[in-house]
Amino acid sequence: MKTRTMISLDEKFKALGAENAPGQEGRQETGDLSSLMRGEKMEGIPVDFSHGDVDAFPPTPGSFEAFKDGFETGGKQAYTEYRGAVQIREGLAERLGAFTGKAISADKELIITPGTQGALFLALGATVTSGTKVAVVEPDYFANRKLVKFFGGEVVPVPLHYQGAPSEYGPDLNQLEAAFESGTEVLVFSTPNNPTGLVYKGSSIQAISKLAAKHNVSVIVDQLYSRMLYSGEVYTHLRSCEIQPENLITIMGPSKTESLSGFRLGAAFGTSGLIDRMERLQAIVSLRAAGYNQKVLETWFAEPSGWMEKRIREHEAIRDALLEIFRAAGLPCATPQAGSYLFPQLPPLDIDPHTFIRLLRYQAAVTLTPGTEFAPGCGDSIRLNFSQDHAAALAAAGRIVKMVNRYRK
Amino acid sequence: MKTRTMISLDEKFKALGAENAPGQEGRQETGDLSSLMRGEKMEGIPVDFSHGDVDAFPPTPGSFEAFKDGFETGGKQAYTEYRGAVQIREGLAERLGAFTGKAISADKELIITPGTQGALFLALGATVTSGTKVAVVEPDYFANRKLVKFFGGEVVPVPLHYQGAPSEYGPDLNQLEAAFESGTEVLVFSTPNNPTGLVYKGSSIQAISKLAAKHNVSVIVDQLYSRMLYSGEVYTHLRSCEIQPENLITIMGPSKTESLSGFRLGAAFGTSGLIDRMERLQAIVSLRAAGYNQKVLETWFAEPSGWMEKRIREHEAIRDALLEIFRAAGLPCATPQAGSYLFPQLPPLDIDPHTFIRLLRYQAAVTLTPGTEFAPGCGDSIRLNFSQDHAAALAAAGRIVKMVNRYRK
Repeated sequence: MKTRTMISLDEKFKALGAENAPGQEGRQETGDLSSLMRGEKMEGIPVDFSHGDVDAFPPTPGSFEAFKDGFETGGKQAYTEYRGAVQIREGLAERLGAFTGKAISADKELIITPGTQGALFLALGATVTSGTKVAVVEPDYFANRKLVKFFGGEVVPVPLHYQGAPSEYGPDLNQLEAAFESGTEVLVFSTPNNPTGLVYKGSSIQAISKLAAKHNVSVIVDQLYSRMLYSGEVYTHLRSCEIQPENLITIMGPSKTESLSGFRLGAAFGTSGLIDRMERLQAIVSLRAAGYNQKVLETWFAEPSGWMEKRIREHEAIRDALLEIFRAAGLPCATPQAGSYLFPQLPPLDIDPHTFIRLLRYQAAVTLTPGTEFAPGCGDSIRLNFSQDHAAALAAAGRIVKMVNRYRK
Repeated sequence: MKTRTMISLDEKFKALGAENAPGQEGRQETGDLSSLMRGEKMEGIPVDFSHGDVDAFPPTPGSFEAFKDGFETGGKQAYTEYRGAVQIREGLAERLGAFTGKAISADKELIITPGTQGALFLALGATVTSGTKVAVVEPDYFANRKLVKFFGGEVVPVPLHYQGAPSEYGPDLNQLEAAFESGTEVLVFSTPNNPTGLVYKGSSIQAISKLAAKHNVSVIVDQLYSRMLYSGEVYTHLRSCEIQPENLITIMGPSKTESLSGFRLGAAFGTSGLIDRMERLQAIVSLRAAGYNQKVLETWFAEPSGWMEKRIREHEAIRDALLEIFRAAGLPCATPQAGSYLFPQLPPLDIDPHTFIRLLRYQAAVTLTPGTEFAPGCGDSIRLNFSQDHAAALAAAGRIVKMVNRYRK
């Protein structure tokens, strides 16, 4: 016996399917994969490319000690304002302001959140309601589309060019403008882009900022990976553009490059009216980012000298080696300019890509995320988070190539 | 220049006003309170009754060590399933099942959440959508009403009797049935009740369970404080009733009695279909309760022998002393049967209660929460969380009484 609400919620939650989401693979029904197997199981260290390996790249030095300090601070640190402890916000506002090229008011323009996922949820909750048209770049982080739908908004897809000539890379600005002209009120996107690792060019960012200002579009820009910028690349922060939209939220967090995901910390900064809404929403969502954990943010943008450079160098070496392996096997793959995501394209296979991905896990001990999580049209691509042990990642990439060859059409 | 969405969201977020919420007092504009002051400022140790003092009642022994263990476990603990690490759920399901009188499937019927607030958000998100009628007890936890409105539901108030003869205490079952008969699909309530400390009688719980089953109403019961049960009191778990609603979620967490709020941990258990929805929602809200923190749940319902009894005894002593002070001053106050909330009623004052509460903070160094947070009609009551240093709490209660006398009509 189902009530009206239950039926309508069944529908709503269908759009939130999480069984292919990174980290949830353990909950999948594997079915009878062995009957589909070509060849034997492959030997090798299992690699889970669905997220970074914080054992291979451990948390920032001093992060645990900062937590301990928070715990020992006691009640004051356990019960912070919903937007986060004021002292921590003050230091953070200064460092994030310096990084992104524009000052941030610790009192009014910054909120500490439970991870960047938390920041994204609050930012979309503060800007999207029933019927709001939201421009969503494709491919992009899978939660963007789900969040828009959850809040009752309508997804207006805008393609990202990331194949072919690098000079053409970037969001389709004509389609973006067309979307803005036909009632789109919000734009959400990530740069570096998840899943391709593409960094939006300065000219794209300037254009987006101007168009959003002109059409009064609220912009949410997810810059989660902007610190891990590879040699020779340039990063442009939207919030430092001269012409800016009235409503702009920038999202960052220390879960990736800094390997602090186990602490669930993030930050959003920008338009004070939106930050205020985000805090009101946080108050009913989970009150605050865990109080003791917030203290760990004092280590953020304050790492030991040389630490970040080394981390970037190590990731760049893995990136280059993987690109070589995939390209040698004929799998097209854009060069990630920042971050640790790689998005190779598979050749036509005899089995559908979702089954291939399950077989990869079952037969080759490699876990990765299907392209469909990032755009409906990306079913022939796979996303890897290559923040992994160098040797294990390369061996696993070799197994992926072998598997591709076994199941190739 | 505001868009359609911004105007509609302004309206939506107005209902989420958090400036009187516990812990947010520091963000209030105090205005010119000194001109309203009668008499001088009062001396004394500041007491913040808006939440428990985890310095006076420190976190469970071993909680920090459990966190450390989680951190040292590394990647496996940083990236758990969205519903929480399986090993931790297994232990927890067993202990929570034993406590609430009915077995819980660790795989299907339990989710670990960022605090009980997180559990409540997910549970209402899984059951309430646009137009859903939700029975909300008044007074009850302030977020209940806000959450219903946020998800687009309609609040159907059901009064709780907590004044007068204790034999009459409890929810108004006639009004509850009337609400169920006229299309209410969800009921949310807390027992022990926040803010009064009232424990629902076994007969009330049985009646609620039966009525909900009969009318196909989903029930969310917040049992946050059910462990801190005072001498002679009996607690009935709805989930152990013989006749039960098809959809039932029970919420608990270690933030209060166990003083683990700084870790942001909670749990929800019950109907697997709802737990599944809650996990899907959690995946876009903040992924998971902080991974390392989850490990702290291994200390929950596993405290050293005698620890809980002592904690209850100490709170009972504070409760009794505060009741004596308030009653001697003529402030009616129901006896809390569990938990650490007290909800005294103020006599008529020359100033409005919100101003009185701001003056209390400014003039008498006492922070507490206005009754309007719990029900629109409770403006003449104040809520205290008396999990405080014993002597400081008594002295602060003395200052409240003095302040009442200064501003009495």
